[in-house]
Amino acid sequence: MRFIALPTLLAAAALSAAATSVSSPSGELVLDVDVDNAGTPVYSLAYKGRPVISRSVLGLEGKEASFTSGFTVTGTDTITVDRSWQPVWGEYADVRDHFRELAVHLRADNPARLLTLRFRLFDDGLGFRYELPRQDNVNYLTLMKENTQFDFTGDHTLYCIPGDYDTDEFLFSEVRFSGLEDEMAPRLTRPAANRPAANGATCIQTPMLLKTDDGTYISLHEAALVGYPAMLLDVDCPEQSMTAHLAPDRLGVSAYLQLPFATPWRTLIISDDARDILASQLILNLNEPCAFDDTSWIKPMKFIGVWWEMFTGNVKTWAYSDDYRAKPGITDYSALPSNGRHPANTANVMKYIDFAARHGIDAVLVEGWNEGWEDWRAYRKNRQFLFDKAYPDFDVDSLRRYATDRGVQLIMHHETASNAADYERQLDRAFSFMKQNGYNAVKTGYVGDIIPRSEHHTSQWMVDHVNYVAGRAADYHIMVDSHEAPRPTGLCRTYPNWLAQESARGGEYEAMGSNPPSHTCILPFTRLKGGPMDYTPGLFETRLSYYNEGKTYQAGTTLARQLALYLTMPSPLQMACDLPENYERFPDAFRFIEDVPVDWSDSRYLEAEPNRYITVARRDKHSDDWYVGAITDDNAREALIDLSFLPEGRKYVATIYEDAKDAHWKDNPQAYNIRTVKVDSRKKLRQRLAPGGGAAIRITPAEI
Amino acid sequence: MRFIALPTLLAAAALSAAATSVSSPSGELVLDVDVDNAGTPVYSLAYKGRPVISRSVLGLEGKEASFTSGFTVTGTDTITVDRSWQPVWGEYADVRDHFRELAVHLRADNPARLLTLRFRLFDDGLGFRYELPRQDNVNYLTLMKENTQFDFTGDHTLYCIPGDYDTDEFLFSEVRFSGLEDEMAPRLTRPAANRPAANGATCIQTPMLLKTDDGTYISLHEAALVGYPAMLLDVDCPEQSMTAHLAPDRLGVSAYLQLPFATPWRTLIISDDARDILASQLILNLNEPCAFDDTSWIKPMKFIGVWWEMFTGNVKTWAYSDDYRAKPGITDYSALPSNGRHPANTANVMKYIDFAARHGIDAVLVEGWNEGWEDWRAYRKNRQFLFDKAYPDFDVDSLRRYATDRGVQLIMHHETASNAADYERQLDRAFSFMKQNGYNAVKTGYVGDIIPRSEHHTSQWMVDHVNYVAGRAADYHIMVDSHEAPRPTGLCRTYPNWLAQESARGGEYEAMGSNPPSHTCILPFTRLKGGPMDYTPGLFETRLSYYNEGKTYQAGTTLARQLALYLTMPSPLQMACDLPENYERFPDAFRFIEDVPVDWSDSRYLEAEPNRYITVARRDKHSDDWYVGAITDDNAREALIDLSFLPEGRKYVATIYEDAKDAHWKDNPQAYNIRTVKVDSRKKLRQRLAPGGGAAIRITPAEI
Repeated sequence: MRFIALPTLLAAAALSAAATSVSSPSGELVLDVDVDNAGTPVYSLAYKGRPVISRSVLGLEGKEASFTSGFTVTGTDTITVDRSWQPVWGEYADVRDHFRELAVHLRADNPARLLTLRFRLFDDGLGFRYELPRQDNVNYLTLMKENTQFDFTGDHTLYCIPGDYDTDEFLFSEVRFSGLEDEMAPRLTRPAANRPAANGATCIQTPMLLKTDDGTYISLHEAALVGYPAMLLDVDCPEQSMTAHLAPDRLGVSAYLQLPFATPWRTLIISDDARDILASQLILNLNEPCAFDDTSWIKPMKFIGVWWEMFTGNVKTWAYSDDYRAKPGITDYSALPSNGRHPANTANVMKYIDFAARHGIDAVLVEGWNEGWEDWRAYRKNRQFLFDKAYPDFDVDSLRRYATDRGVQLIMHHETASNAADYERQLDRAFSFMKQNGYNAVKTGYVGDIIPRSEHHTSQWMVDHVNYVAGRAADYHIMVDSHEAPRPTGLCRTYPNWLAQESARGGEYEAMGSNPPSHTCILPFTRLKGGPMDYTPGLFETRLSYYNEGKTYQAGTTLARQLALYLTMPSPLQMACDLPENYERFPDAFRFIEDVPVDWSDSRYLEAEPNRYITVARRDKHSDDWYVGAITDDNAREALIDLSFLPEGRKYVATIYEDAKDAHWKDNPQAYNIRTVKVDSRKKLRQRLAPGGGAAIRITPAEI
Repeated sequence: MRFIALPTLLAAAALSAAATSVSSPSGELVLDVDVDNAGTPVYSLAYKGRPVISRSVLGLEGKEASFTSGFTVTGTDTITVDRSWQPVWGEYADVRDHFRELAVHLRADNPARLLTLRFRLFDDGLGFRYELPRQDNVNYLTLMKENTQFDFTGDHTLYCIPGDYDTDEFLFSEVRFSGLEDEMAPRLTRPAANRPAANGATCIQTPMLLKTDDGTYISLHEAALVGYPAMLLDVDCPEQSMTAHLAPDRLGVSAYLQLPFATPWRTLIISDDARDILASQLILNLNEPCAFDDTSWIKPMKFIGVWWEMFTGNVKTWAYSDDYRAKPGITDYSALPSNGRHPANTANVMKYIDFAARHGIDAVLVEGWNEGWEDWRAYRKNRQFLFDKAYPDFDVDSLRRYATDRGVQLIMHHETASNAADYERQLDRAFSFMKQNGYNAVKTGYVGDIIPRSEHHTSQWMVDHVNYVAGRAADYHIMVDSHEAPRPTGLCRTYPNWLAQESARGGEYEAMGSNPPSHTCILPFTRLKGGPMDYTPGLFETRLSYYNEGKTYQAGTTLARQLALYLTMPSPLQMACDLPENYERFPDAFRFIEDVPVDWSDSRYLEAEPNRYITVARRDKHSDDWYVGAITDDNAREALIDLSFLPEGRKYVATIYEDAKDAHWKDNPQAYNIRTVKVDSRKKLRQRLAPGGGAAIRITPAEI
């Protein structure tokens, strides 16, 4: 670790007239910070000499005090930090954290208010946050608005989803500033969705991406969202400018703060090479180090699950019975007849365990195991699910023994129907129940509107809630996979038991209207910048009509592409989402899922363009094997896979899982070919990808 | 137990044209139920041939369906029940539950809706509720309004407090319908208080009392408040009519219901003898029987507490330090200096334990023992107190041993600052911590505005919360004393571990402006009808100037009256609220507090008039001793204590703790006299009570 501290405390008088400037270690990014004539803090950012953000305001508005204007600079500190850290799991064994930091200390008078703006300028971008130090005149701050502005410099292309306080399960729009309003107007339709603001702005969500006409990519998000609501963005399209829009609670308050307080980091990842956006670890670097001394209990893993059965044909149910009046804790479920369509039963789960054991899959998720699914309409019930009460046909004790004997883990499911209050009420008992029954991971769910009814999915209380669940789970050595939680902001660095989240439109939508092939070509540029996604790849039977003639649509993917997703959508928790019987129809292709690791010592992004294509190579953390994944949108493509990352001179065998020549996501999705080629570091593979297709390659050292 | 069932199912056609009538077992109360021309259910009630409630409407308005009109009667059931039950603790060893029940089944069409109105007519009053049975067209009901009307028959006198969703800590008004608006206008001042409704009605709270000019007393409240918000009342003063006003959440919804559902009982206790109002067990009778098989762990008790020290002179603090930035779970409290004014410290608590052991007081409450008091402004923090983390000067382990060795219980204090969500989050850990450390009772507190921020103290979620806490406490064999919770509705019958509540203006106000003597002459007619109150009697040093010259006011009581309150404010949990050193100044008077039981086998109300005076005799549950308490308002009075309740022929000695001749609550509160007289069942004591005074008498069998 190199650490060079250069504190530079300058006199206020000398500074207040002049801008403070700092550049990234490489010098390619230059940040200017100043206060304008009204004493409002402003900043601007340039990349390779071209403006990226022009003079934009900063400020916080609270009920008790305003931190928006009247400021003078009382001093600045600048340090340079160059250090590295080793994640418990991830894309790299080693992450470099190299930045120049500028802290600008501000003071306003009558009454006196103190504010520090802290900027970290990396070679691949900028992070900055507000720090409200202890001060005499403000203790509590009821935050109503954050004024952070991002004033862009042209009619860039935006890759983004509609603003909404309660969901981010959308497809991405690719649209210029000038077309955003028309594009988003019909998409802001949910009652709970944020509506265009009074000034006519259009609301979108982060993580989002911009591309300038001269080829600069800008990823905009936030890091370390703790004790604060999620940031959406109000876009002023004519001005090509965005302003922070904090998800409020239903009383209209953004956050209830007590000083001292530091906001999350607002992050801009910037490069003229799209691959750098994917490779950037900036958001993780801006999060706090791992909070745990012992991480030996945290295990990246692959899993299958009693889950897809409920999506395929609207036949199987999470519920045990059809009595929609059944109430957990009140109804005697053992006296209810099963509806006969409840796959979370002991015999079926044993079949999944058998399959997992046979194929080296680490774990089995079971959804619909606990009382309450007959009727779980959100927002209606102050008491919903019981998290320590299994359905009568789900024998927790037998399954624990059966799974343990076969070396398979069970993953518990905690759907809350968004009654987060009820979940917190039961949390200790729920986690104790898990540990007693041998579960070491939980998938949480927040479908519906939130209880407490004052809250949204992304308001401060809910942000606190999901962070609390992750931390409390760690106390029990439980790993977490959150669904319908606020989108991640790199907190998995601090809480590495928080393996993955959904927080985007996932693979389940293949059964609910399908995802176009481009969807997984934009997620890594946006959603994945916050952290791993439980996207649930591995769909082999992509035609929903296979189960149900009425469902004429099908997944936007070939079978081979599904294998590639294990590389392009990196996660320490990867599902093989399809039914065991479908995998048994394609055992040679399933072999790739058996083999592919979920934890990496190195990653090389070889080709990338948002919404178009991604090609990535990764090295297994526990062997010398490399894996390559390549995907395209609905256009066929030839990926160029330069294997120069391999150690020079060493011989390898590449096993290539590829689209067959006539494969097509729509007409012929299951046509694939598996072949092996000898390769070394001088090899450049030209790999054809079908429309909506992909390729997955395992590269193993050749036996001598 | 006598139980006579007389089901009378009549044809709809025969009934819909005519009123259904039922009378109480004695025949003195007569109820009529009908539907009017619009098909709206209506009822009226007469007592001894005089109308008490004239034709008043009934109905529920929901978002999904309305249950207000279009009804026809499809049938009625009538049964007579006469049974008795034995409370775990209370005013009587045996309670008779004797009523005629009328169930009126209603049906409305387009779409079909079903509603049952269930009435129970006792000799001392009426209870009725709405029952929404399972039905095809309604599953969930978002309840917006309950239309229950109480149309009275004259310009009665009302004893009531202002309507407010968040507090009932008010003095009572005594005012006629015609004067209510002027009386209440200046009292409805809190921001969270309910404002006069659009129709000009004035909002008040239950439990409240009415008195007619011909001497009929009517107590209006509710029983078994479960899964529903508390009922306030909108008073139409010119019409002398009241309508139910359910405490809404901050989204404006009264209740989120799922059918089948039964509302709480709306209760009217009626008599022309004020003593009957006090003696009535109607509300307990309308609650469900005890929910526990084993109640051996439930122990009525007296306690002292580290508490009054914080009220007397604004010197002692609940907080350990003066660092108002200290945050539980973040701040290292052991590194903070104590402010030196923190009485919840080990040495001081040991002194309290010593005192309790010396004087046969069962338990010691300690407030301010846990982290978080430095800064506990409600509504600001999603995380507030820790309930398993003691301050550094409070040695939980030593105190457990010290108290156990001396046979004294410790009572834990859980102030939540109204962050009920945070309390539920920690509840299991908090109760586990209590059990590990030998605590068997908890005093809970909800000072401030509620988190979840969608809620009020009396909205449905909070009603569910306090009921949940009582039930969960029972799982741990913990007794509960709730402060600032929704006022009780007799649920202590079902959950007898819920020993007492505050839920009214209690004794603590003697240090915050004082309570007039009349206050404790009206509470038993109103607040106490719902259940016992932790009023905290036993104040011997009534002059606040004793501690702090700046506090010129003093308690509205003589010392002798404080002893009488142990009889007139019956509770299985009675505090001796004053400081041990004050009790040591008056050891002969304190002897009464040592002796007085907190559980009774019989009670006889000898004299009573609301706001004026109460005289009551009670028999110890565990001996042949009787106790008498008599209080008056700020007028002197001669109580006539007819001892004919004593067994004929048996000789007793009465030890009388009385006001001295020149005693006066204001000028001479501590002048008392103790004398003994021989008495028997033929004796009628004429006992003088000073202005604001009282008398307490212990009557023990004379030794032979």
